[in-house]
Amino acid sequence: MSRVHITDTILRDAHQSLIATRLRTEDMLPICPELDKVGYWSLEVWGGATFDSCLRFLKEDPWQRLTRLREALPNTRLQMLLRGQNLVGYRHYPDDVVQAFVQRAAAGGIDVFRIFDALNDLRNLRVAIEAVKAAGKHAQGAICYTVSPVHNIAAFVAQAKELEAMGCDSLAIKDMAGLLTPFATAELVSALVDSVSLPLHLHTHSTAGLASMCHLKAIECGCRHIDTAISSFAGGSSHEPTESMVAALKDTPFDTGLDLELLQMIGFYFRDVRGKYAQFESDYTGVDTRVQLNQVPGGMISNLANQLRDQGALTAMNEVLAEIPRVRQDLGYPPLVTPTSQIVGTQAVLNVLTGERYKNITNEVKLYLEGRYGQPPGSINGSVRQLAIGNTPVIEGRPADLLPEEMERFKREISDLAQSEEDVLTYAMFPEIGRTFLQERAAGTLQPEPLNPPPEQGQKGG
Amino acid sequence: MSRVHITDTILRDAHQSLIATRLRTEDMLPICPELDKVGYWSLEVWGGATFDSCLRFLKEDPWQRLTRLREALPNTRLQMLLRGQNLVGYRHYPDDVVQAFVQRAAAGGIDVFRIFDALNDLRNLRVAIEAVKAAGKHAQGAICYTVSPVHNIAAFVAQAKELEAMGCDSLAIKDMAGLLTPFATAELVSALVDSVSLPLHLHTHSTAGLASMCHLKAIECGCRHIDTAISSFAGGSSHEPTESMVAALKDTPFDTGLDLELLQMIGFYFRDVRGKYAQFESDYTGVDTRVQLNQVPGGMISNLANQLRDQGALTAMNEVLAEIPRVRQDLGYPPLVTPTSQIVGTQAVLNVLTGERYKNITNEVKLYLEGRYGQPPGSINGSVRQLAIGNTPVIEGRPADLLPEEMERFKREISDLAQSEEDVLTYAMFPEIGRTFLQERAAGTLQPEPLNPPPEQGQKGG
Ligand SMILES: [Co+2]
Ligand SMILES: [Co+2]
Repeated sequence: MSRVHITDTILRDAHQSLIATRLRTEDMLPICPELDKVGYWSLEVWGGATFDSCLRFLKEDPWQRLTRLREALPNTRLQMLLRGQNLVGYRHYPDDVVQAFVQRAAAGGIDVFRIFDALNDLRNLRVAIEAVKAAGKHAQGAICYTVSPVHNIAAFVAQAKELEAMGCDSLAIKDMAGLLTPFATAELVSALVDSVSLPLHLHTHSTAGLASMCHLKAIECGCRHIDTAISSFAGGSSHEPTESMVAALKDTPFDTGLDLELLQMIGFYFRDVRGKYAQFESDYTGVDTRVQLNQVPGGMISNLANQLRDQGALTAMNEVLAEIPRVRQDLGYPPLVTPTSQIVGTQAVLNVLTGERYKNITNEVKLYLEGRYGQPPGSINGSVRQLAIGNTPVIEGRPADLLPEEMERFKREISDLAQSEEDVLTYAMFPEIGRTFLQERAAGTLQPEPLNPPPEQGQKGG
Repeated sequence: MSRVHITDTILRDAHQSLIATRLRTEDMLPICPELDKVGYWSLEVWGGATFDSCLRFLKEDPWQRLTRLREALPNTRLQMLLRGQNLVGYRHYPDDVVQAFVQRAAAGGIDVFRIFDALNDLRNLRVAIEAVKAAGKHAQGAICYTVSPVHNIAAFVAQAKELEAMGCDSLAIKDMAGLLTPFATAELVSALVDSVSLPLHLHTHSTAGLASMCHLKAIECGCRHIDTAISSFAGGSSHEPTESMVAALKDTPFDTGLDLELLQMIGFYFRDVRGKYAQFESDYTGVDTRVQLNQVPGGMISNLANQLRDQGALTAMNEVLAEIPRVRQDLGYPPLVTPTSQIVGTQAVLNVLTGERYKNITNEVKLYLEGRYGQPPGSINGSVRQLAIGNTPVIEGRPADLLPEEMERFKREISDLAQSEEDVLTYAMFPEIGRTFLQERAAGTLQPEPLNPPPEQGQKGG
């Protein structure tokens, strides 16, 4: 069977990458009947930053979004992105929270859980994988792809084998920054296909304009699952267009079997939708190959630019870009993805703006150096660690092993504001904005952030 | 030698594809020192629609643009696109005009002439190729790629062999519509590499989002020259980003050897420049795979939309899109490129708007059916021909064989307004706008069309 299967990210990563995760459920539902007809292997619809964005900006209940999408997409596997022990938040949660979250997500309609850890510390995936399997769902173990002196094919293959041994149903290469090149992809995919019997999924971003070539090489080397986005939300820091990959493989042994005309119709729908969100577009939506030289993901660069602009220090950008690889080296070369991208980025900004490296050290860097995010891929700069945490002992075990159960406490704290275990989890993920959301819901005062009227002529088109 | 060589289209096809050929010489010259350092195999800088646009809109002397680019790019091959016997105009010129034009372009600084004929009637390339060789320059014979029942690998290979026999220095596949798929490219390139010893250049457009995959397959099959555009003028109906292809091939046997940082700097320059031309941007600059289904090039669709809008008949668009393949079949499946795209498109509009096919027939279709553009690839619909030209005999020979010399007449007609043979050729190409240009130049009243001030926030980014 050579057929290639498509996961479309239009309802999650595509709008997370291009319009700051702002796509509203009301703009998803009208096209769901068509999306459901396509025959995707899966639709990525939940997790990542969508949970946060629903509560913070859209004033939507993320659990209700899931319920509505599940109803609207009865024939399509629904997929979510889960940050391992971080779930959809930014810290390590204890196992009881992980188990409850996975259980409710599965009950709510998620079929496929893509699970990753920012450090590729697979111990941080174990409980989530087990919970997914216990719920009878598909557990996909993801390896964060990055480039560093300590990342190589052998290490990725070892991780893949471990994920297989941990009971994963499939394996994903998660190239969140768009670092893969076509020939690097061929080498990695060939090695994984040779060593692991799980189906392999390729998730890469178009940031540097290399993704379609990476897909093609991956497919030729035996990968049968790729992630794409409907064309009107494709390109730039999103993914390659679904329609293009379908057209590229048509009438070949790799034919996806998907109907290009149906996909084009869906593309036109989202072309119109995108216009509503013009205020969240980046200034530049084209290809940017800088990531190939400095390994700093596009999304991280725009976050840093905002951070620096707020402090009136935008001119320090080049210094910060040069500092990031140094901080990353000091921290043992973590892949740059939530939350490590924020940890490394913020420290790099401090190192530049204070005029002295590690004069100020963030709390997150201290926790990181104590081992509270897990085991870094490479070795830590000892003098930076000494400076940051002195002789505080470093955790060698799985960080969550030290965390006491929290669900009961969360239930008590949020009390009557929670009408369900899902509500408790909402509060657990985001104590402040979660509580505010539940309060406003109870008071009937939920108010989504306003959308600007569309610009008068010509909107961004992707 | 596996090294891949790049032709950058930034100064010709990229802006012709994205901003209606409006890029001004004043926006080219400041970056020429950097472009000249890159080490491109060539820069495409002239020909195609630029000649027309210079005279019609920019009120620039196209010959002077060439002179200034030649001075500013002393170390880089300059390339132009020549429409065979049509030169840079829309009709067949007699041989003396072709010879004079090529001679002056060569003297003005063109090193590489890419020469094509819209029907792939290679007799329409002969005189231009001979003139290029006589001037000691590089003659590149181009085959227009298209898909039809009469176009196949064997036919393209036969044309390639013929171009080799005609003395071409290299061969180009010209996929103006972005119809190539990666596997079709592999098949075609392999066949050409096997049959012809000339270097092969691939020119394809990103319209449907398949171009980078096509480049990759072409390279793997032995093609060593690809056409790209600096990223800020890449994508959509333009070409793949230069930076992306350079990054994709870096540290492989196909490494281009080009400096990615230098290219990125050039990309940032053109990002700013593009903002000045926002008024010429299409509403949608993303990927559009419709061409893969209906074979109608993106540029042709937008021209038709304008044509229909002017006549208050935009709602007829789908009917026109359905009629185009029928007209194309009636005319023997010409590739759709200037001028055949206009000939087919205008007739299709008439067939729809008059409510009766071929009730009105354009003069160009009549000339086409008389054989005055050359030999169509397939056979003509006899009843359409009968309707159009009755029993008028069809020319079997090379159309230009019937054309009397014209240079002396042009010289007489334009008289003192021409200060050089270049001026005479300007008038020869475009009798009306050429004369107006020369008159205004003499009167000192040349006035380029105005540019709107840039939109207040966020400009299109490609
Ligand atoms: Co992603
Ligand atoms: Co072109």
